[in-house]
Amino acid sequence: MSKKTTGAFTLPGESGYEALTLELAERWGADVIRDSDGTKLSDEIINAGYGIYSTICIVRDHNEWASQNLDKLQQCFLITNPKVAVQDYLSVYLMEDFFAEQFRVNDSKEAFKYWQIVDRTTGEEVPREQWNYDRESGNVVLTGIVPWHKYTVSFMAYRIWEEISMYNHTTNNWDKEHLMQIDPMYLETQEYMLDWMENWCAQHKETTVVRFTSLFYNFAWIWGSSERNRHLFSDWGSYDFTVSAKALDLFAKKYGYSLTAEDFVNGGKYRVSHIPAEQRKLDWMAFINDFVIVFSKQLIDIVHKHGKLAYVFYDDSWVGMEPYNDRFQEFGFDGMIKCVFSGYEARMCSGIKVDTHEIRLHPYLFPVGLGGLPTFMEGGDPTLDAKKYWINIRRALLREPIDRIGLGGYLHLVEPYPDFCDYIEKIANEFREIKELHQQGKPYQIKTKVAILHSWGKLRSWTLSGHFHETYMHDLIHINEALSGLPVEVAFIDFEDIRQGKLQDYHVVINAGSAGSAWSGGTHWNDSKCVDILTKWVYEGGTFIGVNQPSAVEGYDSFFRMAHILGLDEDTGARVVHGRWTYEARDEHGLVPEGASITAKKSIYLTDGSAAVAHETDGKITLSTHAFGKGKGIYLPSFEFSLENTRLLLNLIRYAGNELHETKYMTDNLYTECAYYPESKILVAINNSDQLQSTTINTEYGQQTLKLAPYDTMIMTIGGS
Amino acid sequence: MSKKTTGAFTLPGESGYEALTLELAERWGADVIRDSDGTKLSDEIINAGYGIYSTICIVRDHNEWASQNLDKLQQCFLITNPKVAVQDYLSVYLMEDFFAEQFRVNDSKEAFKYWQIVDRTTGEEVPREQWNYDRESGNVVLTGIVPWHKYTVSFMAYRIWEEISMYNHTTNNWDKEHLMQIDPMYLETQEYMLDWMENWCAQHKETTVVRFTSLFYNFAWIWGSSERNRHLFSDWGSYDFTVSAKALDLFAKKYGYSLTAEDFVNGGKYRVSHIPAEQRKLDWMAFINDFVIVFSKQLIDIVHKHGKLAYVFYDDSWVGMEPYNDRFQEFGFDGMIKCVFSGYEARMCSGIKVDTHEIRLHPYLFPVGLGGLPTFMEGGDPTLDAKKYWINIRRALLREPIDRIGLGGYLHLVEPYPDFCDYIEKIANEFREIKELHQQGKPYQIKTKVAILHSWGKLRSWTLSGHFHETYMHDLIHINEALSGLPVEVAFIDFEDIRQGKLQDYHVVINAGSAGSAWSGGTHWNDSKCVDILTKWVYEGGTFIGVNQPSAVEGYDSFFRMAHILGLDEDTGARVVHGRWTYEARDEHGLVPEGASITAKKSIYLTDGSAAVAHETDGKITLSTHAFGKGKGIYLPSFEFSLENTRLLLNLIRYAGNELHETKYMTDNLYTECAYYPESKILVAINNSDQLQSTTINTEYGQQTLKLAPYDTMIMTIGGS
Repeated sequence: MSKKTTGAFTLPGESGYEALTLELAERWGADVIRDSDGTKLSDEIINAGYGIYSTICIVRDHNEWASQNLDKLQQCFLITNPKVAVQDYLSVYLMEDFFAEQFRVNDSKEAFKYWQIVDRTTGEEVPREQWNYDRESGNVVLTGIVPWHKYTVSFMAYRIWEEISMYNHTTNNWDKEHLMQIDPMYLETQEYMLDWMENWCAQHKETTVVRFTSLFYNFAWIWGSSERNRHLFSDWGSYDFTVSAKALDLFAKKYGYSLTAEDFVNGGKYRVSHIPAEQRKLDWMAFINDFVIVFSKQLIDIVHKHGKLAYVFYDDSWVGMEPYNDRFQEFGFDGMIKCVFSGYEARMCSGIKVDTHEIRLHPYLFPVGLGGLPTFMEGGDPTLDAKKYWINIRRALLREPIDRIGLGGYLHLVEPYPDFCDYIEKIANEFREIKELHQQGKPYQIKTKVAILHSWGKLRSWTLSGHFHETYMHDLIHINEALSGLPVEVAFIDFEDIRQGKLQDYHVVINAGSAGSAWSGGTHWNDSKCVDILTKWVYEGGTFIGVNQPSAVEGYDSFFRMAHILGLDEDTGARVVHGRWTYEARDEHGLVPEGASITAKKSIYLTDGSAAVAHETDGKITLSTHAFGKGKGIYLPSFEFSLENTRLLLNLIRYAGNELHETKYMTDNLYTECAYYPESKILVAINNSDQLQSTTINTEYGQQTLKLAPYDTMIMTIGGS
Repeated sequence: MSKKTTGAFTLPGESGYEALTLELAERWGADVIRDSDGTKLSDEIINAGYGIYSTICIVRDHNEWASQNLDKLQQCFLITNPKVAVQDYLSVYLMEDFFAEQFRVNDSKEAFKYWQIVDRTTGEEVPREQWNYDRESGNVVLTGIVPWHKYTVSFMAYRIWEEISMYNHTTNNWDKEHLMQIDPMYLETQEYMLDWMENWCAQHKETTVVRFTSLFYNFAWIWGSSERNRHLFSDWGSYDFTVSAKALDLFAKKYGYSLTAEDFVNGGKYRVSHIPAEQRKLDWMAFINDFVIVFSKQLIDIVHKHGKLAYVFYDDSWVGMEPYNDRFQEFGFDGMIKCVFSGYEARMCSGIKVDTHEIRLHPYLFPVGLGGLPTFMEGGDPTLDAKKYWINIRRALLREPIDRIGLGGYLHLVEPYPDFCDYIEKIANEFREIKELHQQGKPYQIKTKVAILHSWGKLRSWTLSGHFHETYMHDLIHINEALSGLPVEVAFIDFEDIRQGKLQDYHVVINAGSAGSAWSGGTHWNDSKCVDILTKWVYEGGTFIGVNQPSAVEGYDSFFRMAHILGLDEDTGARVVHGRWTYEARDEHGLVPEGASITAKKSIYLTDGSAAVAHETDGKITLSTHAFGKGKGIYLPSFEFSLENTRLLLNLIRYAGNELHETKYMTDNLYTECAYYPESKILVAINNSDQLQSTTINTEYGQQTLKLAPYDTMIMTIGGS
């Protein structure tokens, strides 16, 4: 379909496979060649006339220095599983639950003062006099305690194996040295790193782009001692791995109060991104963010001084970077690279204020994929994988531009997969064509503007934490994925934005998630002022779309604080003997397309019977609408991403904005979508399904009826020139 | 099967159907004839030589006096649906939501002072200066309020139609006067009632038993104005209908503090039996209970003075009676009659300290049953209904004795149903035979003793509220129904019993229900002392069986406070990125019989991996066991009554008590059960299924293998005499 073009493509080269590297660089139209974790570029590749990305991981690859500075390795707090005392004495082996290759107890004087023993039955800390650490055995021994209570030990540990390296290592059964990660919070580390960066730049004249992979602090990834539960805790957005005795001391000096182990371990729950952050956590994040900006800038300045560009990878050790923070531009990065499986991740990349946006496509050129399933080995189908990811990403690329794409890993693995090579060639050309579309102006959007309301707001636009497969249990990630390719302007707001009057910019607010979660907003809903502002805004014409347990918080007459807008609420147990309104489900506005499917919740009830039930499943409400003043409340008990549900969401937004009658630049077949670029009069139609589809698009120049091959893209000019 | 016997049977007679009455009295072996709501007994029946029960409802049937004393009708608090103010003014029509035939606003000076307007957005009461009641329009008008907040009005209402009468009336489409209910809280009412009782007894020489139906205060049953939601609130155990301005004033004098409307309406949730009661509610219950005892006793004394017995019906207006309260014997009742659909209700009756226990069987002789489905009319199958109820009840009758059975309603309705008459004859004989079994001693039980732990404890033994079909959503009612026919000693305990050391009497504690509910215990689990005592008790050999959300309460490191005993916990959202232990499900003790079925919960996780998973469904844990000291924790995510699950429960209890090896007096076929009476060496086997069953019972005199016809009962002597 797409014509042969070149550029905007980053190819992972591999020493020893020079011919393959150069052949594929040619076929895929690469303008840049990169190395990867585990591969090197030979001189032949380096001198072939391509731009050269060099990946550096500033905190690892320094094992020599690290082994001489074991007190400057990165750290974290760990908490033992609660143990019941059956007498007034208890012995706890600290490392019982943890992967010994990842952690080593940090019992240095500086760290030891942050250790905490807590009586979890009462929640009270056990005084220092009642416990003792026996370094030889690795046990904490508690004495004079209350029998039958349960106790935990929170202690500090050095992380002795850099986590991404550990993961790549175990995934690929590498047999090499374990890389340690050093902590730039210590001045000596900073000096070492600055020197190292200077030397590295001097020694890598050929490098045009230094690709930081990534900065200093990995997302939290605590491994367990048992193969039955290896990944004890994995939070892409958490700051648990930024801790050290040094940082805690500096924080106390700056903020005037001290954080404790409990501020991190939280009784074993840790401070997950999925729960609204308390002010102490926000302070810590600001403290780390400030440090990461200030010190990163020194490294980036060195890169720039050597005439190279500095790109950064928005994964792995991204913590403390916060690209959606207003301070992000202080870093001075020239480009941002995001590893992408889904449409919302492409939008997450394109929304950052930086010159160059690059997405790294999947599958990664590894024998197995992230879930441990085969890709480039027997049993894998990398072409099908690539196709599925591309279908999701393409929708998003039509809405907002991305500047570059690329791959990563071992290039030689693609050799036995010629169809994969063909498909990447097709994708590369298609990508470059789509990228061009944005040059003349933005694509057509409907008038209705949507704000997604959650507790992180803009700071965590598009996802609160990680990839789709890590957050699939949250309704909002499904909604974000649907929105990523819809012709709708989307913003992410928090509760402070509501207080600041920002609702005036939007027609629809979506609030989706479980009670208590950061996704729904949790305790932020205790702020009656926000409820008032939203209520008034709906009365004057806005629409509040609630999904699952929107605005839910305990302590009021209704569980959903927006129950009066939705016309329904959830029973948390006190209304089990209350009558339920009968209703007749009727989709009078034709909102629910065939094939749309919403999982019901059994405890949802109509408050005063005035809400209209548009859809039900097994006698349970699956879609309701409720008029309030000039506006509406709309409720869905859940949302799962699918082509049918994506169309349902679009219909709801159009209905909310009173533009359901406007069908211009909508396909009449939900398995297809389109984008229209008014300035260039270019219409793009895509088939998101694996079947041939016929679709009709109503344009200002008449109807276009098209036949689209499975997964195909069609680009055409309409209305003459 | 059973031989023809007589006695212990109460027949509803009907004037105009004398021949039928006497014929069935003969066939069914009745010794007593009763009237019912809507029927009378003629002299021919009265003089036929049978004992005569006369039903009296002491609070209704006084319309003449009531209409002269409208200020002494019974009352309650009502709360309007929350309404949003879109300006600083709001008008609320009080009766908008309520059934006008049931309620009339009580705006008397005494009642008016208890009205409350609450800003539900903030939870604060609106000061009196800001609202006004317009009697003519029936509206409360609020001024100077905060726009966009929502408001409720809590007001007092007279109840102008006695609820059971209202229900019977509307169910049978009666066209007669609406009966009002008068409140004995007023001295004038008391005087009137005492006079009336005296006169009634003098005029009813033939009556041998005065059957109170029942005392003064109906369970709460608030009807709505809309046919789409007629039964707004129905709680069999609630005290909402005991309120009056007079009672509130007396309470304040006695307890030294005043209750408010909010203490009853609770923001629209009311104070349901399903949520643990706060001390203010417990005080109110004690206050009403005291009044009901003191005044009832005066009425009962009159009955006794006239040489009659006083029985009471344990339904309808039972509130304030509390038969499981230690004070119950102060009433001086001679008998207790319970309307019974299920086994647990028979046990609920038999457990009361009173001379005569009678159960009223179902179906009631009405055209339609409780759910509105046909019984004695086209489309009904009263014999099948009777059979199903009897199968459930029979198991319980084998465990604990009941003295009498009976029916109620219009006898003439049975005429077209000869098979129903045959079946009742069979039941009557079977009942009399089972009753006899208990004369020589208790049936054999296993050694393991079970305590059910919930927030009401003994006071609400066997159910917290109402019939099975009203509480089917609670796991514990299913467990109670299963237990009602098992050879296991069962007690009901509360948290105070734990603190008082009563655990020593039991081997197993069962805690079952949703978080926050009275069934699971809700906030009672904040008492760490109870957790300690239970922990120690398990360590020393006890077993804690948790079902659904046992011991759940927010605010600790684990959601289930007994997580350390169960070896598992529920994730409330903060552990969504925590790893889960893998496990292999293995039923090594053979606990789960074929056909047993437990619905899984998705958020259950193993805490430290040491619990054994005995059963799983779709990868979710459905049965786990966890050793702790000499005892165990056992977890089930839910429990639904079925023959298979009943056997599972019995297995768990036997496993908990380390007597799984003891198979004496157990059937090897779970569709059958048996009871053995050691003193008389009588073995009873029952078939609970609608299929022929073969079953083998291991006895101390060898094995008995029996064939049982569908639903059949077999009674035999074993081991010679």
